[in-house]
Amino acid sequence: MFELYEDERIDFIGKEELQIIQSHRVFSFSLDAILLANFVHVPIQKGNLLDLCTGNGVIPLLLSQRSKANITGIEIQERLYEMARRSTAMNHMEERIEFMRADINDAPKLLKGKKFDVVTCNPPYFNTAAKDLINVNEHLAIARHEIYCSLEDVVRVSAHLVKHGGKAAFVHRPNRLLEIVNFMRAYHIEPKRLQFIHPVEGKAANMLLIEGTKKGKPDLKILPPIMIHTKEGHYTEEMKRILYGK
Amino acid sequence: MFELYEDERIDFIGKEELQIIQSHRVFSFSLDAILLANFVHVPIQKGNLLDLCTGNGVIPLLLSQRSKANITGIEIQERLYEMARRSTAMNHMEERIEFMRADINDAPKLLKGKKFDVVTCNPPYFNTAAKDLINVNEHLAIARHEIYCSLEDVVRVSAHLVKHGGKAAFVHRPNRLLEIVNFMRAYHIEPKRLQFIHPVEGKAANMLLIEGTKKGKPDLKILPPIMIHTKEGHYTEEMKRILYGK
Repeated sequence: MFELYEDERIDFIGKEELQIIQSHRVFSFSLDAILLANFVHVPIQKGNLLDLCTGNGVIPLLLSQRSKANITGIEIQERLYEMARRSTAMNHMEERIEFMRADINDAPKLLKGKKFDVVTCNPPYFNTAAKDLINVNEHLAIARHEIYCSLEDVVRVSAHLVKHGGKAAFVHRPNRLLEIVNFMRAYHIEPKRLQFIHPVEGKAANMLLIEGTKKGKPDLKILPPIMIHTKEGHYTEEMKRILYGK
Repeated sequence: MFELYEDERIDFIGKEELQIIQSHRVFSFSLDAILLANFVHVPIQKGNLLDLCTGNGVIPLLLSQRSKANITGIEIQERLYEMARRSTAMNHMEERIEFMRADINDAPKLLKGKKFDVVTCNPPYFNTAAKDLINVNEHLAIARHEIYCSLEDVVRVSAHLVKHGGKAAFVHRPNRLLEIVNFMRAYHIEPKRLQFIHPVEGKAANMLLIEGTKKGKPDLKILPPIMIHTKEGHYTEEMKRILYGK
């Protein structure tokens, strides 16, 4: 159960040193997932959280440090699903975090009407046509490109699985902002909190975090931006707090 | 021509000390207008610029320092229209800046098919129903509330009057972001540059600047945010550059 494949390594993340299996060949989490896990509003004491396109399970693992809720992760790729399960066992979190290997489009049927307090997703960012992706690493292509799920699928499935009044939160590229807000509104997730991530002060944003409320009232707040690096190339104090809790 | 009414004063703005007539009773420009005049892309050597809901003409006066183009301002209120004309004369800019007293909804007909390189607007921010505004100062109410023009009117008229490939730029409140981008797209002004203004680091945005291109291709950039004040309550270096050019 704790064995590693040749291409894998164990990284330590979060405030209480979670262990997580990474692989440069099939999937490594990025700052995007860490920022989303830090951004989303979660119930502290109980509830049900769902992470779509969960990859190696980084978001469920990080959320388990912020909330005592039960957490479900859904991942389509067998290899990543199995990495996520091993990481969860390594941190003794099997009782609170479970994974399903499934296409997110099948999730509403598989979950048989279950609704969640919070749904998160760090989806594939690129809407490249699958035919343009021959001869690339299949694992990375599926994680990064909209091959098995489009942005609309992600928002539609999130909206279906979140409770009335529950939250859905996403991380994406700023150039998809207009699409994402339009899909959210079309599926009745009213955007409420929007935050931009800039690589350094004075540069355009390269990431956005957005959270909406199912059937919420229109009232969008633009949160203070997050800068990743100082001009000297170190993490900013805010990023250090997010990454290391100090 | 240079006489002032009892409630008026002359303020100095911009890099070359423009003089502008202000009145606390009927209209004073705000940072919003200064930020919009600084934000918008303008042709430097020639062209035609249009400012809707121009108030006391602050945006045309500021744009005249950035561009040699001809500038037209449209204002519905006789008193403000006349203040704008007096300020323009005071700065000897009558040859380049002209004002029309008109409802912006009539502007496409009055301008007889003329198209502009750039259209700007610092519109009324509040969509309060006119019936809720009895017993308030009429001049200020018209400038601040959507009595004579709605946000949709502003975007529709801008789209009508800007050339194919020309720019339309607006300043507004962040909680109207989704409406403004939807109206822009509906009237074929593709949002291209979006910038948020925060009162101080760590606080939510209280203003947004947005520029679109008529019939442009989708490609939205989120510019670095602007902070108005330092934590000590002074203008930031960036705001000093915008306000005083140093």
